[in-house]
Amino acid sequence: MTVFSQPMLPSESIERVVELFATLPTIGKKTARRLAFHVLRQSREEVQTFADALVHMREHVRECSVCHTFTDQEVCGICASPKRDASMICVVEQPSDVFAIERTGDFRGRYHVLHGALSPLDGVGPDDIRLKELIARLGGDVQEVILALNPNVEGEVTTQYIAKIVGPLQVRVTRIARGVPMGSDLEFADDATLARAFEGRVPL
Amino acid sequence: MTVFSQPMLPSESIERVVELFATLPTIGKKTARRLAFHVLRQSREEVQTFADALVHMREHVRECSVCHTFTDQEVCGICASPKRDASMICVVEQPSDVFAIERTGDFRGRYHVLHGALSPLDGVGPDDIRLKELIARLGGDVQEVILALNPNVEGEVTTQYIAKIVGPLQVRVTRIARGVPMGSDLEFADDATLARAFEGRVPL
Repeated sequence: MTVFSQPMLPSESIERVVELFATLPTIGKKTARRLAFHVLRQSREEVQTFADALVHMREHVRECSVCHTFTDQEVCGICASPKRDASMICVVEQPSDVFAIERTGDFRGRYHVLHGALSPLDGVGPDDIRLKELIARLGGDVQEVILALNPNVEGEVTTQYIAKIVGPLQVRVTRIARGVPMGSDLEFADDATLARAFEGRVPL
Repeated sequence: MTVFSQPMLPSESIERVVELFATLPTIGKKTARRLAFHVLRQSREEVQTFADALVHMREHVRECSVCHTFTDQEVCGICASPKRDASMICVVEQPSDVFAIERTGDFRGRYHVLHGALSPLDGVGPDDIRLKELIARLGGDVQEVILALNPNVEGEVTTQYIAKIVGPLQVRVTRIARGVPMGSDLEFADDATLARAFEGRVPL
């Protein structure tokens, strides 16, 4: 029988950074170690710059007072821009969704970030997400609310809930299409996605 | 023809962190964004702790004056430990290799980190890696030098070079075995690995 010895860890400060990197999503222990060793090869100035950028971001980023996405200002650049169409509000769950949609460069309206979705099982109700704030924006110019929530149970529940509330306010309520993703292989689409794609078929 | 608009980036400080995360190995732009948003959900204290750990590591970690692995002390825990066998030196390319071997808990000797491998094509010669420092350690107790360099051209060149220098010094020089990795499928082993595995076959 082999008696395995305790591995020696030559540096506590490296272990500490490895542990902290490993708490980040998608980063396992092995990648965390690789990242720590990469940082060790950077200059002191580079490491200080990285550390400062993290702290600065956490200190300065806040929710836009209009749409509640993350921004460095009181009002984000999208809400402040006169070029953006104020008649359309795209409702998303997270600030990261705003970035994803902006990347397409297609949507010219404004956003509203709920910071979550309704989830009765997890105790997340209408007061726990930025829903009152959405309703408050619906007077005036707004003609259409486009719901772009995640295609899962919570997103579906939230979509239905908002449609019910906004419907009577004489604002058009739409939802982004579900179907087979572009560039994918029909063969590998899951059943629910395929079923939705057939339901949502359009005439040619 | 659709005119694509410039996507709006609501926060410069987030973009800055995304860019910096994306300079790290294995982290693409998409993962970098995900990590930045994760950091935004952490408390200010957590972010400060992470930033401090990075800077502290970069400031305090240095090369062990004996084996040249990364350590917080003048001499690393492995070199300082009387429990480690001073008659065996395992030569590796990088400090991260020391961690990988220590994880197995099997090797009870000491290490020597070259911080690179010979690469004539890239202009890396004997004076550019910690080779003199290795030779200087070879008097006294050392009976065996185990070469555990990467199984590629540079590692091979370095292995041969060290064997030639250390051979005349009446020190045994060995190299770790090459062959099919444990838990892998023979079918998927590459030709070079399979060829080495046959060359290195052992009697049963």
